Amino acid sequence: MSTSLEPGAPEVKTQPSIASIAAEAGVSVPTVSKVLNGRPDVAAETRARVESVIERHRYRRRRARQSSRPALIDLVFHEMHSAWATEIIRGVERAAADQRAAVVLSELGGEHRPRREWFDDLLARRPLGVILVLADLDEEQRGQLAARNIPFVFVDTAGEPPPGVPTVGSTNWAGGLAATRHLLALGHRRIAVISGPTTVLCSRARVDGYRSALEDAGVAVAPDLVRYGDFYVNGGHTHGLALLDRPDRPTAVFAGSDFQALGVMRAARELGLSVPDDLSIVGFDDLSVTEWIGPALTTVRQPLREMATTAAQMVFTLARGERPPNERIELATELVVRQSTAAPPPTRD
Amino acid sequence: MSTSLEPGAPEVKTQPSIASIAAEAGVSVPTVSKVLNGRPDVAAETRARVESVIERHRYRRRRARQSSRPALIDLVFHEMHSAWATEIIRGVERAAADQRAAVVLSELGGEHRPRREWFDDLLARRPLGVILVLADLDEEQRGQLAARNIPFVFVDTAGEPPPGVPTVGSTNWAGGLAATRHLLALGHRRIAVISGPTTVLCSRARVDGYRSALEDAGVAVAPDLVRYGDFYVNGGHTHGLALLDRPDRPTAVFAGSDFQALGVMRAARELGLSVPDDLSIVGFDDLSVTEWIGPALTTVRQPLREMATTAAQMVFTLARGERPPNERIELATELVVRQSTAAPPPTRD
Repeated sequence: MSTSLEPGAPEVKTQPSIASIAAEAGVSVPTVSKVLNGRPDVAAETRARVESVIERHRYRRRRARQSSRPALIDLVFHEMHSAWATEIIRGVERAAADQRAAVVLSELGGEHRPRREWFDDLLARRPLGVILVLADLDEEQRGQLAARNIPFVFVDTAGEPPPGVPTVGSTNWAGGLAATRHLLALGHRRIAVISGPTTVLCSRARVDGYRSALEDAGVAVAPDLVRYGDFYVNGGHTHGLALLDRPDRPTAVFAGSDFQALGVMRAARELGLSVPDDLSIVGFDDLSVTEWIGPALTTVRQPLREMATTAAQMVFTLARGERPPNERIELATELVVRQSTAAPPPTRD
Repeated sequence: MSTSLEPGAPEVKTQPSIASIAAEAGVSVPTVSKVLNGRPDVAAETRARVESVIERHRYRRRRARQSSRPALIDLVFHEMHSAWATEIIRGVERAAADQRAAVVLSELGGEHRPRREWFDDLLARRPLGVILVLADLDEEQRGQLAARNIPFVFVDTAGEPPPGVPTVGSTNWAGGLAATRHLLALGHRRIAVISGPTTVLCSRARVDGYRSALEDAGVAVAPDLVRYGDFYVNGGHTHGLALLDRPDRPTAVFAGSDFQALGVMRAARELGLSVPDDLSIVGFDDLSVTEWIGPALTTVRQPLREMATTAAQMVFTLARGERPPNERIELATELVVRQSTAAPPPTRD
């Protein structure tokens, strides 16, 4: 029976049996089972041969609900940092609790754990599904998950997601547009943007929203006011100093994350600039801390917890063998105006 | 063979077999196995009878290393909030990666998940061990873990931990002492403290350190300057307003967490008080954000990540059937002086 439910695979016409895979690879049936179950006791060369037969036939294991152990769902971060990660973890935790599944957490960016070993263990624990947060899988790994009927969903993909792979994000472009329009409406014309890495899709979308707002308003985009860095405080601080420590400094900065915005605020303090009197700042994310600092940060709210819950629900839907109604979901962002934005100071010369 | 390695249990003289437990409970051997493995297909009444025989004989299952599935370690929060939780998660993740174990994460305080169901699933996934962060287990649950030879370690216990239960914390008392001595050395005499709930051991220890420092300096403890709340921003804000909105306000506040300190800072801003000129503030934790806000927060650093790594290592030691060198570990806190503390303003009348 063909059960090509995993993302990205074309409909399978004929499903080979494990016996035929074993015969073609020249191994026993238990050896094919061991490979499918991620067991370590198979020689690397044998494993590779079995994997390649599995891949060639686009074999799809039928999901057998394991009755003896509770279900697991894997949540994989490229890097866990700050309250941003906590929000996502809580969103997945909540959805998993509803389905009586437990959440297994990994952080890959730290590189504490060899990737190959980590992935073997992931296969071996046979999770219901996998959620990847700004983390990536190569094509071989995606194929191995598909062959085992383990669905996966991306939250905020780094690069362009492969076609058919379910992703959950937020309306980054619209968020960039709203943040920039807010600053334009206050009277700003020299508006800088500091975003995340150019390799991360959501940071490019925010910059494009910024550009569109400026173009709509007939304001030329000044290339030296468009900066890419990382999403952390240091990136905001470094770019903030470079942007602000000059006579033709911008009167407003739209930062790609709340943490970057904190870095810009610090740069402003160090240069003796007052926020919002001398400089307006808009962040992105709406982490709870931004509400409490002085001045409280105007920011673009990303519904991180809801994004995570949505991704987990998609995993459960796919694991049941159903297709989610929509495979690319962007939840709405929302501008939250607080005290870090105001009209620009009178024109300097 | 007796293997009474779990904390708190006296040496067991004779270890009953599963068969004798089955006979005494009037059930089959497979039924006892099912109960030990947390399988759901046992009637509640039967399960209770088996558990009580297990408990009466202090039966201790021998740990059989499962070869077919990678090892799991359970990390259980009462409540996950902010970067504080992220630090602990990363510390456990790192230690688990070293041992090629995966981390299963649960949050209990949110009450998304019925406790009984959660605990059954925990037993059924047979983790190597359990780390509890400000979360608690009742005596029955502790007994059930011990019977299955699943070790558990507390990080920052809420209440008084039962004797013999391994715990990892930080030197909260010394931290309270250091924070208060720092303020005394700057010349402050009216120093308030806002701590966490009185029911949480670490918050009481911090207040006691504060008291000792004042007593050492010959400064009387003013009962109206000692406050207990929660560890969140709102608690700091509410107590901050109550403490500061009066003529005989304190010139310094020692807050029980960095988030409380942010709340006090906001209260000060709302009352037009400048930090540190009118008011000095010391926090507790040293979350990364405190370095970046203005003014950067003087705080007591808790090595959260190291505490978590230590707890995980204790779990692995216990799971190997060894005893950790020390069952109560407090890692050192350290005062980090930044810009939120200074000499008190000239005396008011």
